[in-house]
Amino acid sequence: MNHAELIAVDWGTSTLRAALLGSQGQVLDEVTQPRGILTVKPGEFATVLIAALAGFTRAKGTFCLISGMAGSQQGWQEAPYCPCPTGLADLGRALTWVEPGQTAIVPGLRCEQAGIPDVMRGEEVQIFGALDLLGLLDLKEATVVLPGTHSKWATVRAGQVQHFCTYMTGEFYALLRQHSILSRSLPADDGPLDEAAFDRGVSQALSSRSLLASAFSTRTLALFKQLASDALPSYLSGLVIGEELRAQDLTSIAQVVLVGAPALTQRYQRALGQLGVSATGVGAQATWRGLWQVAKQIQP
Amino acid sequence: MNHAELIAVDWGTSTLRAALLGSQGQVLDEVTQPRGILTVKPGEFATVLIAALAGFTRAKGTFCLISGMAGSQQGWQEAPYCPCPTGLADLGRALTWVEPGQTAIVPGLRCEQAGIPDVMRGEEVQIFGALDLLGLLDLKEATVVLPGTHSKWATVRAGQVQHFCTYMTGEFYALLRQHSILSRSLPADDGPLDEAAFDRGVSQALSSRSLLASAFSTRTLALFKQLASDALPSYLSGLVIGEELRAQDLTSIAQVVLVGAPALTQRYQRALGQLGVSATGVGAQATWRGLWQVAKQIQP
Repeated sequence: MNHAELIAVDWGTSTLRAALLGSQGQVLDEVTQPRGILTVKPGEFATVLIAALAGFTRAKGTFCLISGMAGSQQGWQEAPYCPCPTGLADLGRALTWVEPGQTAIVPGLRCEQAGIPDVMRGEEVQIFGALDLLGLLDLKEATVVLPGTHSKWATVRAGQVQHFCTYMTGEFYALLRQHSILSRSLPADDGPLDEAAFDRGVSQALSSRSLLASAFSTRTLALFKQLASDALPSYLSGLVIGEELRAQDLTSIAQVVLVGAPALTQRYQRALGQLGVSATGVGAQATWRGLWQVAKQIQP
Repeated sequence: MNHAELIAVDWGTSTLRAALLGSQGQVLDEVTQPRGILTVKPGEFATVLIAALAGFTRAKGTFCLISGMAGSQQGWQEAPYCPCPTGLADLGRALTWVEPGQTAIVPGLRCEQAGIPDVMRGEEVQIFGALDLLGLLDLKEATVVLPGTHSKWATVRAGQVQHFCTYMTGEFYALLRQHSILSRSLPADDGPLDEAAFDRGVSQALSSRSLLASAFSTRTLALFKQLASDALPSYLSGLVIGEELRAQDLTSIAQVVLVGAPALTQRYQRALGQLGVSATGVGAQATWRGLWQVAKQIQP
């Protein structure tokens, strides 16, 4: 029988996910609830968490470690951002304890480039978890990409996040998909990926100088019936992902690790393939492994 | 007393504007109504136009020339796009007559670059009108910029539009302003232009590689209180306009003409100034002058 060693919690804006981890970091039980921080009133975070974990079989006092937006200003308690470069040990030292000795929140990261700050919250745990799962934590340099609403590109050297940059790729897709003039040409549902249309979108973005211009091609290709309506969502997806890749200096990148849901990381792998860059994908288990690794930093 | 020679109509998506022009092209009377093509049912365009022009004092049978979305698939009658290069004489030959000898619609333009089509409808008239007003119609080369929801950058050589490119700048601003995560940091109203914040946005966009990344700085500068909430709309405006400029090859541009409302063209002039490029601004009279010039092409 496995002995529960850690309750790992990924508490985001719209969802609360938790896992009960055994002494080797293996997942013993898992729960997902639609209790993101936006649904929780101030003062009720502890109550909501206890209710979410009620089904877990564990010893009283099992340590609970939380990452994600629960540590933001709108969350349970603000866990101030750690400045880059940051490693696992730094995260372990900078926890914000909401229940002393019992429950802690992992800080997010911040970095700055040319006077402009950037931030992440939750992805830092996934980065370390993904690299640990792949045995790459001590690699000289790796680029870890976390695609999503706000994609993060992080450079990790010898176990420390050096710097990172946020791309509002998923949000731009949603804005253009739902609220722009392009939405009039697109079908109601995205449907399955049209690989040829997606590839064409990636290629168009890579040869364009700005999404401001390439996005309009979605409309004109529809207007002149050069792309079927059903293919347009895939084309637009290729455009925004291609734009994210266009902004990178990929010639200097040795190793790309993609962290996220397979449906999305596979699109990035496909787009990177157009540039001759191969990438390794890691799924949701990166979060649990990352929280496990942070917890190990504070073992007595 | 002036003799009315032309009824010039700019019939767009949301507004119908008309002017009564005298024998020298001077404006004798003007009317604006919220009767854009989206408010007009098929078959009722003639009736709506007659009602709009009812206040004009002119001889029966005064020729009426229309530009804008009235010539689109959703308009009065489709006026097929003219392929670039196109000059005034080409437009005059390609009119679509909705009332023979009486009322005609000016076609839009299309061009193609690397297999991607681009279109404009209404701006072609403004381009020729602006160049005529400035005495630049026969210039060897000019770049005419029409800022707006969908900004157009057109290259004109010896009186012909050679090619052009559309940037969804105004629409991206509106999407980010109203529907994105950034909207949570922004005040309800844009307020007056904060020149320092606008300049900082332009500069940030010019040194960035993509709006996907630079847009996020609006959020982080607000998060760390490095820009006041009231300054954020100006900063975001600078970001999108700066992104539009970043996408241009301005080193090869000899003469920039900006056509549009002064409040907007002045922002572009300011942003271009950061790059050492000066630009001449032309206002709404470009439309009337352009329609006047097209009408002259079909004089018997």
